[in-house]
Amino acid sequence: MQRVVVALGGNALLRRGADDTFQEMYDAARAAAERIADIAAAGWEVVVTHGNGPQVGRILLQQEATAGSVHPMPLDGCGAESQGQIGYLLQVTIGDVFFERGMERPVVTVLTLTRVRPDDPAFRSPTKYVGPFYTEAEAHGLETARGYTMKADPHGGWRRVVPSPAPYSIVETPIVERLIADGAIVIASGGGGVPVIEDGPRLVGKEGVVDKDLAAAILAHEAGAQVLLILTDVPKVQRGYGTLMPEDIDRLPVSEAKELLAAGEFGAGSMGPKVQAAVNFLEAGGARAVIAELDAATDALAGAAGTELVPG
Amino acid sequence: MQRVVVALGGNALLRRGADDTFQEMYDAARAAAERIADIAAAGWEVVVTHGNGPQVGRILLQQEATAGSVHPMPLDGCGAESQGQIGYLLQVTIGDVFFERGMERPVVTVLTLTRVRPDDPAFRSPTKYVGPFYTEAEAHGLETARGYTMKADPHGGWRRVVPSPAPYSIVETPIVERLIADGAIVIASGGGGVPVIEDGPRLVGKEGVVDKDLAAAILAHEAGAQVLLILTDVPKVQRGYGTLMPEDIDRLPVSEAKELLAAGEFGAGSMGPKVQAAVNFLEAGGARAVIAELDAATDALAGAAGTELVPG
Repeated sequence: MQRVVVALGGNALLRRGADDTFQEMYDAARAAAERIADIAAAGWEVVVTHGNGPQVGRILLQQEATAGSVHPMPLDGCGAESQGQIGYLLQVTIGDVFFERGMERPVVTVLTLTRVRPDDPAFRSPTKYVGPFYTEAEAHGLETARGYTMKADPHGGWRRVVPSPAPYSIVETPIVERLIADGAIVIASGGGGVPVIEDGPRLVGKEGVVDKDLAAAILAHEAGAQVLLILTDVPKVQRGYGTLMPEDIDRLPVSEAKELLAAGEFGAGSMGPKVQAAVNFLEAGGARAVIAELDAATDALAGAAGTELVPG
Repeated sequence: MQRVVVALGGNALLRRGADDTFQEMYDAARAAAERIADIAAAGWEVVVTHGNGPQVGRILLQQEATAGSVHPMPLDGCGAESQGQIGYLLQVTIGDVFFERGMERPVVTVLTLTRVRPDDPAFRSPTKYVGPFYTEAEAHGLETARGYTMKADPHGGWRRVVPSPAPYSIVETPIVERLIADGAIVIASGGGGVPVIEDGPRLVGKEGVVDKDLAAAILAHEAGAQVLLILTDVPKVQRGYGTLMPEDIDRLPVSEAKELLAAGEFGAGSMGPKVQAAVNFLEAGGARAVIAELDAATDALAGAAGTELVPG
């Protein structure tokens, strides 16, 4: 049986502009679950990974509001919380859809840790904005009180920045593989997994954000998936995105993708990491990597939608 | 190999009176991890379950403080978050201890859903206090605005009360069994699992709290464990607890335990559910159920510490 790792964007689970109620999140998860079931019905073994940006953002806002009475958790703890929250919604909705379609399968959420390197340069220059906005004075206060790195946000105000180190291995891959081989639909590597470094015999959680697509590429490689399917909210990767003449890309050879990445053609916080993840997966020996819109998931797997990255 | 389900009290993970920092929680998890490794080293297959009362309490405080700007999640979502948070700490610390002792084993946290009955009388009369304290006027406001059931707390102030329905089956048992059989240390049924009811083909999360010991008893039965080991912060079950002449109990036949439970001998929120869980496990065919202090875990398994409930 062919195996696919499906990476769901954080916005697939908390839709842009949607009211952030739990019901909205449930409805979005249910819509994603239908697509996951379509993929499984087409004969694929499925691992589901997902983003957690909006959800961790909410947890950070909640934490900060009570920082005087309840100790805020470090970001690794918040990430683990978000894996529980989002995993729950996906697990219930995927289980329901399968049951309704008479193709009952066990569905399991595996809390995931992702290894990063202690000497990753990202730890020396954090760049990823997280949490609430502050005034400059408040920001300097947090630098002193908590050792945060604070930075003026281009959208105004000051925010905390954290490192986004590169993942190199997923701690739970052996577990994930075993469960897929046993027929389960596995939800793993949520939010890219909690970043951990190896410190002697110990795994130590780090405050940082692992890009969920880069982590999905590693999980796909380690778990022997043939395909990495990155689902987002646009139908195709574009050249000249944001210009007057954007151009859809149907097929993108790895060599060309690397040139475009190097030229900064894709946004650093948006399409860039997805294209990079696809490149990484193919360079590690993966057969196919496709970037597509959630609703076109099965067409994309069949080669009839999205942007397919190809070796060469 | 013999199999044990170990139920860790919520207070084993956020010690009574301790400052509620993440480091404190980590240290408590690490202490529990040492005992789990002792048990595995003695030749047992181990499933770890845990409480989540203090942790969900913190999440509720955080949610309420930002209720005006970030929609609070229902309690089932908060429970799932807490499974991620606590599972993370246990998974990392258990993995570390095993690695340090040269007995490396995969450790996995399985997000758990627990089936409860839609007609459970608990849904008609919620009794479990959760979340922040309010004035009576605020309490009535929440009844109107959110449909909460609010009640005067014996400790003063008003609080939300939620149902504590009886669990009858654990959705993820087949997954847990498979993972244990494969040699993994499995963390499951955190906080008793998220309560769900079956509604046609769907599982629907309910706002409520499943007693973690009752859920552990069901998981132990379903997963074919020989022993249910309930770890808490007192060395033995006592007769006359809180009186001038409390008396330690070494062995407690099920019939006597049931009489004492019926007579209200054990506190409803403390020892009662533990004794009830032990009784349920034995009546379902379990071989042994022991209630003991965390630090005496291996002695308790060997029959040399704690209170052992026995058939008869």
